[in-house]
Amino acid sequence: MDISLKTSITLIGAGNLGYHLGRRLHATGAEIRQVFSREAAKAEELARATGAQPVSQLEEVKSGAGLYILAVSDGAIAQVAATLQQHLPANSAVVHTSGATPSTVLAPYFPKHGIFYPLQTFSRSREPDFSTIPICIYSPDEELEGQLAALGRQLSHSVHRIDDEQRAILHVAAVFVNNFANHLFHIGHTILKEEKLPFELLLPLIRETVDKIETNRPEDMQTGPARRRDQETINRHLAYLKKFPNFAEVYRALTKNIGEMYR
Amino acid sequence: MDISLKTSITLIGAGNLGYHLGRRLHATGAEIRQVFSREAAKAEELARATGAQPVSQLEEVKSGAGLYILAVSDGAIAQVAATLQQHLPANSAVVHTSGATPSTVLAPYFPKHGIFYPLQTFSRSREPDFSTIPICIYSPDEELEGQLAALGRQLSHSVHRIDDEQRAILHVAAVFVNNFANHLFHIGHTILKEEKLPFELLLPLIRETVDKIETNRPEDMQTGPARRRDQETINRHLAYLKKFPNFAEVYRALTKNIGEMYR
Repeated sequence: MDISLKTSITLIGAGNLGYHLGRRLHATGAEIRQVFSREAAKAEELARATGAQPVSQLEEVKSGAGLYILAVSDGAIAQVAATLQQHLPANSAVVHTSGATPSTVLAPYFPKHGIFYPLQTFSRSREPDFSTIPICIYSPDEELEGQLAALGRQLSHSVHRIDDEQRAILHVAAVFVNNFANHLFHIGHTILKEEKLPFELLLPLIRETVDKIETNRPEDMQTGPARRRDQETINRHLAYLKKFPNFAEVYRALTKNIGEMYR
Repeated sequence: MDISLKTSITLIGAGNLGYHLGRRLHATGAEIRQVFSREAAKAEELARATGAQPVSQLEEVKSGAGLYILAVSDGAIAQVAATLQQHLPANSAVVHTSGATPSTVLAPYFPKHGIFYPLQTFSRSREPDFSTIPICIYSPDEELEGQLAALGRQLSHSVHRIDDEQRAILHVAAVFVNNFANHLFHIGHTILKEEKLPFELLLPLIRETVDKIETNRPEDMQTGPARRRDQETINRHLAYLKKFPNFAEVYRALTKNIGEMYR
């Protein structure tokens, strides 16, 4: 029997993650009791979509929910927990959804605490496919951890117990493959825009770059002037990049690092 | 009427690009006369697949083909052209397939020269979908350029006239979005391997990073600690990266550059 389906949830935060997570939890049968957002309109929108009560003051968050999910920014987690502690029962189960913040920030406020971290980037306008999103769960409380695992499986077939240290590492890696990769796409976009060439020219290449590593190790797929130490082409590229000195710096750092990796 | 279907082609080079291009040209009805590779086995394999004659000496390349396509490494283009010039008619049409080398390297040897550059990364083991690959064509000879455009349309619905300067720029951008992005995936892979975490955890995130920019500008999709100037998280990441000093350098360069782009 699925414990999670019986767990009522209060969701603190209605940003990109809270918005999609709340809607998906509701769709899979979870009871969402309350939705908190400091922006009343956001709380109301998500509450409507999930059959929950909207609240815009933390003091209005009621006791009695089986699980409190904090989907707020990293910097706000501790303070929100401190405020909730003042009027929620001490044995309330409280988790946060961040990859970058240890579970221990919740410990001073709620002994029953943990992590429910969907490893994905969320945008308001894009409907995520939760079934493939790795859900990283963790709690020092065994019962709560079991509950989080069940809730994870309700959303996704990819649920993983990831402790604080592992999750911190995962988050660093995620910054490389998501934030930094996106920035390289931004650089490509900027260069082509400057030269009045359509960005669409690069999309099949970008798509294939990613398709390849679904079935191959990235290191085996590397090509290009840095990999083959083609200094003539590298110099030509750097000469062109004189008009984008910031990009030249990134070019140099990555070319150097690729050279070091294939010694 | 499609000129290209009547053009007989001799393919110089049976590497990853030559291999796929030759097979695709053959499949779309082009006549491949000869396939050259210094490695006889490679020439024979591709010749069998394309109904062509295999040759492993440049001196065996016969005159009379409508188009000679040089799919060789950047460093070899000029020398191959110089050797071919010695026994091919001076008015032979000779193009190369490189994004990194100007068309002008062919000019001293063949007045009818140009470019036929499929903007994609090719691996032997992966069947490319040519129909979506941008084919960048160029020739200072108007008739040849028309022929190249027709040949491009035979393979792809994305054919573009891209001159030498534009192609050089496109190639720089391609290095950022392909080689460098792949290197970030390599870094992510290395970090997770070190920590005995499965790389598969990052694949949905990587997939979404790319899916997003099919319909959004990369700069609008940026998230993460560098974008929001979350110095606390950045410091935590850099502390972890002390065990990977090379990756820390890349982290710093990209974080700095992202900061500069969102001033």
